Amino acid sequence: MLLIQIVPKSTIGLFLVNVNLKLVWHFFQVDISVYKKWLPLCKQTIIAMNRVVLIGAGNLATSLAYALKIHGCSVVQVYSRTMKSAKALADKVDAKAIDSFGNIVTDASYYFVALPDDAILQVAEKLPKLNGIVAHTSGSTPMSVLNRVQAPGFGVFYPFQTFSREKVIPFNNIPICLEASDEETYTKLELLAQKISDIVEPMNSEQRRWLHLTGVFACNFTNHMLSLAYSITAMHNIDFNIVKPLVLETISKAFEGNPADYQTGPAIRYDSVTLRRHAEMLKEFGLDELYNQLSLSIQKLAQNRKL
Amino acid sequence: MLLIQIVPKSTIGLFLVNVNLKLVWHFFQVDISVYKKWLPLCKQTIIAMNRVVLIGAGNLATSLAYALKIHGCSVVQVYSRTMKSAKALADKVDAKAIDSFGNIVTDASYYFVALPDDAILQVAEKLPKLNGIVAHTSGSTPMSVLNRVQAPGFGVFYPFQTFSREKVIPFNNIPICLEASDEETYTKLELLAQKISDIVEPMNSEQRRWLHLTGVFACNFTNHMLSLAYSITAMHNIDFNIVKPLVLETISKAFEGNPADYQTGPAIRYDSVTLRRHAEMLKEFGLDELYNQLSLSIQKLAQNRKL
Repeated sequence: MLLIQIVPKSTIGLFLVNVNLKLVWHFFQVDISVYKKWLPLCKQTIIAMNRVVLIGAGNLATSLAYALKIHGCSVVQVYSRTMKSAKALADKVDAKAIDSFGNIVTDASYYFVALPDDAILQVAEKLPKLNGIVAHTSGSTPMSVLNRVQAPGFGVFYPFQTFSREKVIPFNNIPICLEASDEETYTKLELLAQKISDIVEPMNSEQRRWLHLTGVFACNFTNHMLSLAYSITAMHNIDFNIVKPLVLETISKAFEGNPADYQTGPAIRYDSVTLRRHAEMLKEFGLDELYNQLSLSIQKLAQNRKL
Repeated sequence: MLLIQIVPKSTIGLFLVNVNLKLVWHFFQVDISVYKKWLPLCKQTIIAMNRVVLIGAGNLATSLAYALKIHGCSVVQVYSRTMKSAKALADKVDAKAIDSFGNIVTDASYYFVALPDDAILQVAEKLPKLNGIVAHTSGSTPMSVLNRVQAPGFGVFYPFQTFSREKVIPFNNIPICLEASDEETYTKLELLAQKISDIVEPMNSEQRRWLHLTGVFACNFTNHMLSLAYSITAMHNIDFNIVKPLVLETISKAFEGNPADYQTGPAIRYDSVTLRRHAEMLKEFGLDELYNQLSLSIQKLAQNRKL
């Protein structure tokens, strides 16, 4: 009870409301009477804090819904343009499916807009007045598209990962990049993010659009390189498993610093005989030009790094 | 002694010579007199079997030398054009450094030519008459470049992995692709390969050159994609660690089957707004054309798979 006396009441209130009752009790050894005094406010806030509405029922929304559910949040509604897809997800997390914003509850604490980029603005304009934070989950859409939502705050909650409906992945290890209209909203988004992930970072709209582009190289193009590798082995009766240790070693080395330091292969060696031979082999699949461009890009990057 | 009487003598001889004396004794409970009868042949063969000469002292030669040493083989000599680089590797594995083929021992069992592709043929023509198998370690060079070596047999011993001198990696998990001039040579190469790796596969020159090209996509181009991702994050003050979970998930999903089944991103979604925006962002780095070509290639592959 020593600490409680030197900490301003408002701070305890903030803790009680925003963090976790048990934690407060643990740190401050709060007298039960203090605890009881704040109880009605706490209860109300904590219940509301855990109430989430998902607008969208796609790949990201699915993994997010599971993560929220697992970490003790309640997904109260799932909206989708069609009742069928709203219901497909809602049923899995004991939520209510809706296909009209007329039916949206207004007392949830978080409304996540997990929709294709071009749909976010449209939806933002259709949303009724809400009592919770509205956040979109897009990497390439600026926060400002939510400027006109009628809500106590808005922001961006961008999980940097590739999602597919078939494989729901745990959120613990997924970096969540946050941006918010104001500090209080940021704190609230952070609290929820920290519930489901160990990696939560602030990131403004400008950084985020570059991070999104980074993801295209790191994930989409990398996957395409592996797809082409797969095609080649399949066509020549080679078991793709033989390629896996090479890929794993490539990634493991690349993660040690700047991947460019670990570049190997004919391009970086300027082995023109092999480069020509490979391009020749790829002609029949129309992949020779891409091969040449990629090889050239490897050499250009190496040149630029020397300068 | 029961078994030994029904197994043809020649089979025991083969075991004694090619496999392992202890193993033979263990399985057949061979009378010590039988063992003694074969002893001179065994000793000679076993000593020779473990004696390897490395021609080349580069990245692959270095990892191979360590693997051989760890698994009880003796690297007797390391050849390189310069004494300095020969010595750098030889000293690490208690071998003798040589820089002239005049000094090469002729009684080793294996001579591995681990040199750049265009050097293999030249070296093959300079080698003296040898009593052991000569094998090159190149993915893109046909076995036939060794046609004229004076040796009991020749072949290819191709470890499918990316090597760097700074990071010596264990061979256990590296697939070794083998080809040989004849069955006996194949068996001998296989015996050595199985000593150092759990994945040993026969592969002819034609398959091997396609596998080598596969490696360029799976390793060199993949690493380049990560290098470009790294550059973008570095330029925008984003910690590259944030990208790692995405890459790991991409690889993990890609390994579940055909990576093309798990393609995500703006290209496969035909999201032309994002594609244009990304290309625009990349213009200042001269990466817009590469971005467009890669996106197009993703769409082409998807189209071809539908046909």
